[in-house]
Amino acid sequence: MPTFVQILDFIGTFAFAISGIRLASAKRFDWFGAYVVGFVTAIGGGTIRDLLLDVTPGWMTDPIYLICTGLALLWVIFFGKHLIHLHNTFFIFDTIGLALFTVVGVGKSLALGYPFWVAIIMGSITGAAGGVIRDVFINEIPLIFRKEIYAMACVVGGTVYWLCELAGMQSYGCQVIGGISVFITRILAVKYKICLPILSGNDGEEQGKEN
Amino acid sequence: MPTFVQILDFIGTFAFAISGIRLASAKRFDWFGAYVVGFVTAIGGGTIRDLLLDVTPGWMTDPIYLICTGLALLWVIFFGKHLIHLHNTFFIFDTIGLALFTVVGVGKSLALGYPFWVAIIMGSITGAAGGVIRDVFINEIPLIFRKEIYAMACVVGGTVYWLCELAGMQSYGCQVIGGISVFITRILAVKYKICLPILSGNDGEEQGKEN
Amino acid sequence: MPTFVQILDFIGTFAFAISGIRLASAKRFDWFGAYVVGFVTAIGGGTIRDLLLDVTPGWMTDPIYLICTGLALLWVIFFGKHLIHLHNTFFIFDTIGLALFTVVGVGKSLALGYPFWVAIIMGSITGAAGGVIRDVFINEIPLIFRKEIYAMACVVGGTVYWLCELAGMQSYGCQVIGGISVFITRILAVKYKICLPILSGNDGEEQGKEN
Repeated sequence: MPTFVQILDFIGTFAFAISGIRLASAKRFDWFGAYVVGFVTAIGGGTIRDLLLDVTPGWMTDPIYLICTGLALLWVIFFGKHLIHLHNTFFIFDTIGLALFTVVGVGKSLALGYPFWVAIIMGSITGAAGGVIRDVFINEIPLIFRKEIYAMACVVGGTVYWLCELAGMQSYGCQVIGGISVFITRILAVKYKICLPILSGNDGEEQGKEN
Repeated sequence: MPTFVQILDFIGTFAFAISGIRLASAKRFDWFGAYVVGFVTAIGGGTIRDLLLDVTPGWMTDPIYLICTGLALLWVIFFGKHLIHLHNTFFIFDTIGLALFTVVGVGKSLALGYPFWVAIIMGSITGAAGGVIRDVFINEIPLIFRKEIYAMACVVGGTVYWLCELAGMQSYGCQVIGGISVFITRILAVKYKICLPILSGNDGEEQGKEN
Repeated sequence: MPTFVQILDFIGTFAFAISGIRLASAKRFDWFGAYVVGFVTAIGGGTIRDLLLDVTPGWMTDPIYLICTGLALLWVIFFGKHLIHLHNTFFIFDTIGLALFTVVGVGKSLALGYPFWVAIIMGSITGAAGGVIRDVFINEIPLIFRKEIYAMACVVGGTVYWLCELAGMQSYGCQVIGGISVFITRILAVKYKICLPILSGNDGEEQGKEN
């Protein structure tokens, strides 16, 4: 029987794959292309983390991620027209995925003996880098660089994880509270349209002059 | 004296490098840029595979790939105008490269003890990922996500390789038949314009509303 | 007290981060996005090199690169409007970074026992690949493929390094002369507008026909 964490991992992978497949469909990718973009969105962050940590990527040891992406593709093929009504559901799923992937990334790095500042970066890469690769593949500027508190929620969650451990909490408690912090940060940021300031340096002017 | 496989490998590398250099020239890259794009098209897939498998990329142990890309660049510089007449020749060379790279990727993964589903993915990455990096570098949506049975031919060939081994065939026979399957799948797909369905989910509609 | 090389490394990292942050600001990235692009510009080349050489990336062992990027971001936020007057200063800093990163990359590869042709490539990747990732993230064709002697300066410097070692010089001398070669090559190329020929093969014509 799957554990609670495995179920959350499946939900998160499914939501991430759906987000890749939907954007691929908007660009008129074929089924294969959509599958690849969905898969890379789901496992890309964890793969970059594992390459940096020099361990074997998780998806190479368990075919569940391939199967989960296949189910996500079938979902979009059959129920694509109705996906729009489920927008809020997928937003919740996506945020669950973000929270879980972040704490998994933080936990894995700490288990390998890395200091906390590395672990927070690895958590953020696990949560957010898949979406960056997705956006590069569909030839768009990565969304997380321009809009929304997304990767920042990972940084917040990773930092909370750290503070919990500093306060002497058990590893399990740190993960739960860290994950919930990611979830709440993201939900609040979207609900109240909180975002970071846009950086406008001199190049904006330069560009203006050129045009 | 080079073996038959080494000759095929050289032909495949040359054809892949030419495909990168031609697209770079269409974007008015300089010689250096064209060389880099050609080189990355040729060795990019194998390099990603080797990073995932945690072994040293092949091009770092033998300068033949650098030399081969250099010859491809000279070819385009001197005979560029005549390349168009050789379109079918290069299509055949490119397909030979795709077939060879795929079975090399499958074989290398199996030799390292990975299960077949990982080996099929690694074969496909070896054959197709170089072209994806090429397309990212020239700032286009990767061609294989939208058009033609290209990476799918790798999946077909890898699966045939697997079935051959299940049927008790020798490793050498699996490779030959797997490679021929890639070759034939690609040739037939182009000849009869077989392609996968385009995925059109709800986002197409959404986009329509936005415009 | 920091050594002379550490000071140069800090200056180079700062200049590379500034170049990423400025381009991100021209694309209206938020602070977080600009920070990530600056960081990846600074450490991207060394990270790809270290993944290929199978060692732990330097930035995962010392938080100085994160801090340096943070200072670069603050600089652009507070003094962005005045950056344009410092254009020449940053060009010099950027070239110092390029020179240092190149010889660090060459030296690290040689120390790991790789042949010189691999070391020259690794030096060039260390110096130039961060800028390629930066340009992919901001959705532009990488600048180094089209304009300026930039990565070519790394190749020149790496080759000079090699010739010095062939001539029996000490490692330290090779690094100084190799680094100065990168610096002078780049300065002269920009001053005298030296660039490589544009590659125009048949595809230019093809494209012309299609349009």
